[in-house]
This record gives sequence, C-alpha cells and structure tokens, in this order.
Amino acid sequence: MPVKVAIVGATGLVGQEARRLARELLAPHAVELVLFASTPRQLEDGTQVFALEESEALLASCDYILNAANAEQAEWLAKRLGPQQLLVDNSSAFRMDAGVPLVVPEVNPSALTSIPKRIVANPNCTAAILCVALKPLQKFGLERVVVSTYQAASGAGITGLQELEAQLERWKEPVAAWPTAVFGEPLLMNVLSHNSRVRAETEAFGALYNDEEWKMVEETRKMLGQSDLWISATCARVPVKRAHTESVTVDLKIDVPLATLREVFRSAAGVSYVDVPEERKFPSSQRAQDQDLVLVGRLRKDATQPKTLHMFISGDQLRKGAASNALQIIRHHLESP
Amino acid sequence: MPVKVAIVGATGLVGQEARRLARELLAPHAVELVLFASTPRQLEDGTQVFALEESEALLASCDYILNAANAEQAEWLAKRLGPQQLLVDNSSAFRMDAGVPLVVPEVNPSALTSIPKRIVANPNCTAAILCVALKPLQKFGLERVVVSTYQAASGAGITGLQELEAQLERWKEPVAAWPTAVFGEPLLMNVLSHNSRVRAETEAFGALYNDEEWKMVEETRKMLGQSDLWISATCARVPVKRAHTESVTVDLKIDVPLATLREVFRSAAGVSYVDVPEERKFPSSQRAQDQDLVLVGRLRKDATQPKTLHMFISGDQLRKGAASNALQIIRHHLESP
Repeated sequence: MPVKVAIVGATGLVGQEARRLARELLAPHAVELVLFASTPRQLEDGTQVFALEESEALLASCDYILNAANAEQAEWLAKRLGPQQLLVDNSSAFRMDAGVPLVVPEVNPSALTSIPKRIVANPNCTAAILCVALKPLQKFGLERVVVSTYQAASGAGITGLQELEAQLERWKEPVAAWPTAVFGEPLLMNVLSHNSRVRAETEAFGALYNDEEWKMVEETRKMLGQSDLWISATCARVPVKRAHTESVTVDLKIDVPLATLREVFRSAAGVSYVDVPEERKFPSSQRAQDQDLVLVGRLRKDATQPKTLHMFISGDQLRKGAASNALQIIRHHLESP
Repeated sequence: MPVKVAIVGATGLVGQEARRLARELLAPHAVELVLFASTPRQLEDGTQVFALEESEALLASCDYILNAANAEQAEWLAKRLGPQQLLVDNSSAFRMDAGVPLVVPEVNPSALTSIPKRIVANPNCTAAILCVALKPLQKFGLERVVVSTYQAASGAGITGLQELEAQLERWKEPVAAWPTAVFGEPLLMNVLSHNSRVRAETEAFGALYNDEEWKMVEETRKMLGQSDLWISATCARVPVKRAHTESVTVDLKIDVPLATLREVFRSAAGVSYVDVPEERKFPSSQRAQDQDLVLVGRLRKDATQPKTLHMFISGDQLRKGAASNALQIIRHHLESP
C-alpha cells in the first residue's frame, strides 16, 4: 500500500515543490499524493486538485497531511485530524506550542519521538537554514549568534515572486511605474527591511523586531533546545527569486581551531561546505537554488576574538526551508520504529 | 579668485559625481574644475579632460587635487604634490598611513588640524557610511560592532554597474548567457560574497577577511580613534545599482533608553533618521540614493541584552561614501583658520 500524503495548498510555491519532490524524498516508499487547494481545479497534467471543505472524507483517508497553506488552514486541519493521521504543518500556527515538536531532521530528530498532538511543525525557512549551520557548532557551546539575512522574493509566496518578475519586465521604465502592492516599494534594484509586521514597542518580547526576525529567535532556541540562547536577527529582502542567504556571527564557548571547524562542516548532515577563495567559490543565492543542502562558506575566525567565527550561508527556502524539510519529517516518521 | 580643484579620474563614477556636485558642495566658494583622466578627450558639453602625464604644469596650478582614480595614481600624485597643494585621495593608498588623516567631516574633523604630508585620505565607502552612524553612539561607549553589508554594483566602478545593466538587458535569457567578467558570477537575482580579494589564511591580521571587510575594520578604528574596537564585518554584493545598505549590531558600554538613542540620531550630523513602522518607512538602498545623508532606521534594543542595539542603515556610496565626502573635506579645509 502506498503512503497517502495530502498536500494542502498544493498550488502555492511550497505546495508545488512538495508535489515535485515527494516521490524522490519519500523513496523507497511508494507514495500517493492527494492535492487540496482553496479552489478545486484540474491541473495541466490532468491531476485533480480538490477543495478541502468539500472533500473531508478524502482528507480523512490520508496518512499524512502536509499543510503548505496558512496558519488559519492549519487550525482547521488540526481540528479534523484523525487518530492515525499526522499533520506536518509549514505554517507558524503551532511552531511555538510546547506540545508540538518543531523539527529539522538533521538538527533535532529526537523531538519526533513524542508527538502528543499528532502535529509536527515545520520551521520558518530562515530559521531552518540557520539551524542546519548552527547544529554542528553546538557541541562547542553556542554563546551568542548574530545573523543578518538576504531573503528572496519567493519567500513572500507566488505574489512576491510575480511582483519581482513584473518589475523585471518594466526595468527600463521609471521606478514609479513598477507594481509594488506586495512589498510596498520596489524590490528590484533595492534592499528592503523584511516586509513582515514590525512588533509594537510595547510587546513584552521582541519589541520592534519584525515577525520574521522574532521567529528566527524563538524557533532557533526551540530547535537547538537552548531557551536562553543570546540570538538576534535582522531580516531583509533582496531582489533574488529564490534562496535565502545569511551572514552569521557565532560566539562559541571555547576556541576551536579553524581546521576543526572545517572538518565539522565537511561532515555535517545537510551541509555542503563551499569555501574556495582561489576560485571565488562561496555560498551564493543562485548556487543554493534547487537543492536540499545548506551551503556554508566564508568560514573565518574573528580577527579580535578567537572564540568568535563568521560564516556566510545559503539555502533554498522553498526546499530545505519548507517543502523538502516537511517531506523529510514524513520520511523520518515513516521509518521510526 | 576661484578655488582651483583638479579631479583626477574625472570620467569614472566617483569623478563624475565630484564634477556634478563640486559647485553645490563647495558653495559659497567659487570653483574652477580642472579634469584629468587616463585618456585625454573632450566631453559632450565641450569640457576638456587632460591626460595627467602630459599636463603636469596645469596640475601644479591647482589648489586641491581630488584623486578619484586608483592607488597607483595616488602614489604618482603624492610624489608631485606642490607645497601649497592638498591631495584628497579617494583611493586606499594612504588611508592607514599614520601621517595621513582619514576623515569624514561629521566624524573626526579635528584630524584635519594636522596634515603633515598634505594628503587627506577619503575612507572606504562602506566604512564612511558606517562611521556616520556609529559616531553619535560613541559617547555611550562602543564595546563591539558586528556589521553585514548589502553593497551596490557601482561600488565596483563603471564596469561593475555596466555588467549588472547588461545582465538586466538579458534577464529573459538563461543565466549562463549573462556576462560575468567583473563579478565572476551573475549578480542580477543573486547575492554574492564581496568580490574583493580574500586575505590569505597566513596573514597576521584579518586572515580570511576579504579586503573590503578588513578596510571596514581598520578604517573604522582609525576614524573613531579606537584602535582596539572589537569590530567585524561581512561584505556582500547585491543586485542594486547604487547605495550600500548595512545591518549593524552595536554593544554599548551602558544601557541607553531607546528614546535617547532616537533623539541622538534625529540630531546627529549627516544622519537622516527614517524609522516609521506604520508606514513601512525604513532605510533602503533606493531611498538613500542621490543624497549625502546616511539613513538610519529599524533602531531597536536587543531582546536579550539591553546594552545591545540593532540598526539598518543606507548611504549613497558614490556621494557620502566617496565624492561628496572628498568635497566636504576640501570645504572644511578651505574654511579652517
């Protein structure tokens, strides 16, 4: 019997990736995909996409539900979850719920041993990419992390990607003529503070952080199991279609030789260590596209403080930051005793 | 008598800006510009550009020499400097020379009181922009600075800008068809580690930093007069035509209320404080273009450590990071007793 996986939000960017990658990432298990979206339709290849609210029996027949839609949809799905089903939720709805594991399989697979609500949360894309690069360092003790991001338009979904492409179409026209409904200002030929809501100055936690920055703080702490980790994030959008790049500074508790750090990254799960100065070969957004590995490079010790290191990392946020990670969670669960 | 200013490298991006802005930034002083470049030519408006090596007498007649060409040219000019002339050098040739002031007039104008070699160095563009934003904080004690940059193509000169524009022209073609001679890989729709040379692992100082990063470290220390400041930089190129953006984390020696910090930036020399979450109005590369002020915003206290703050800053690297700053140095010198 094939594993029956429902993809909710199957026509969004993350849903499309999940459809494209499911058979590859769940192999050797046979897979049957059942696609759901807000509007029922038939895809070009003849596949049927069902409207969720009219197809509850079909949904109930699935073993796994991968939610690539929003938090509201996640709440709806959670209420209808059958006793044999597992919901892998890519939205932010349950990520900080103490009864819901937040998992990157290379980082904290043991969190999957207890799933009391039958829900596993898939982390925020930038946090997932960051944690893959931080995990190999954790054995040396993480004292402090400072990260600045360079995030792609597709992180804002199809509409974000389409807006950047529409600006490209009009690149010769005056900037004032470009469409800017999604990001509020031009993204092409620009760098913007991330477009998520900025938290009020009166918030008890994360005041004036934007939501993306605060997710990075909270979710990284939860995944690494260090609730008091001193971590800060500054999130920005850059005119890139796909893949998030991050500049990361880490204060370790001990002084680790550079050669050891390199060895650690060369053998780290989920990491591709790309660091060849002679060839100018380092992580870049385009180099990270369409693969599940997080690229790590520009690794160096701080010039002043030997316990501090800097690195430049890139990951495909639609794959490792979303669809692939969700599928890897399903596969890990399938193979657990 | 007008002030006679030689612009060497007058046809490069920085030289063009210097020509365009000289009268405005040196006002109320009358100015006569004398233009030099490697190849003599007549500009469209009829202005003559002289070849430097064939026009030494003309060069000797100038009061100020603004070098917008490279370090080699700077060395050549320094050797021929007359006793009444001042060389304001935008190259990196003399920046770290102990006998040469490295100056941003809003930051360390007092360094101009002693100019033993009749050379004043204009700082690296990213360092200049950073120092304008750090100076107002220095009175609270700078303990540590971590900065990541989002740098424009035009920082690599006309050829860098032209390469990005050539990629734009071909944006519908496969990436493999794009010209990449300057940056070595596509810059359009990408984020790259800065294209400057990466220092050898065996370097005594700044091992594995790229040259841009190391300039930021050394020059910031020199301008702020804190030779032991713990500062690190990670420099990246983004597909932006003009203006450098920087994500800056600062550990202060004391806990300063946010309201005080805002007040400090609102009244700081050379700063435009742009920080309106309700309107999503923050510093961005496009917003910073074609002005001399450095935009400072997204100002917030770290969620964990009250002595730490984060800010997002943007400045036009061809203006405040280069041509305007050099002209401001000349003006300051003109008006000194």
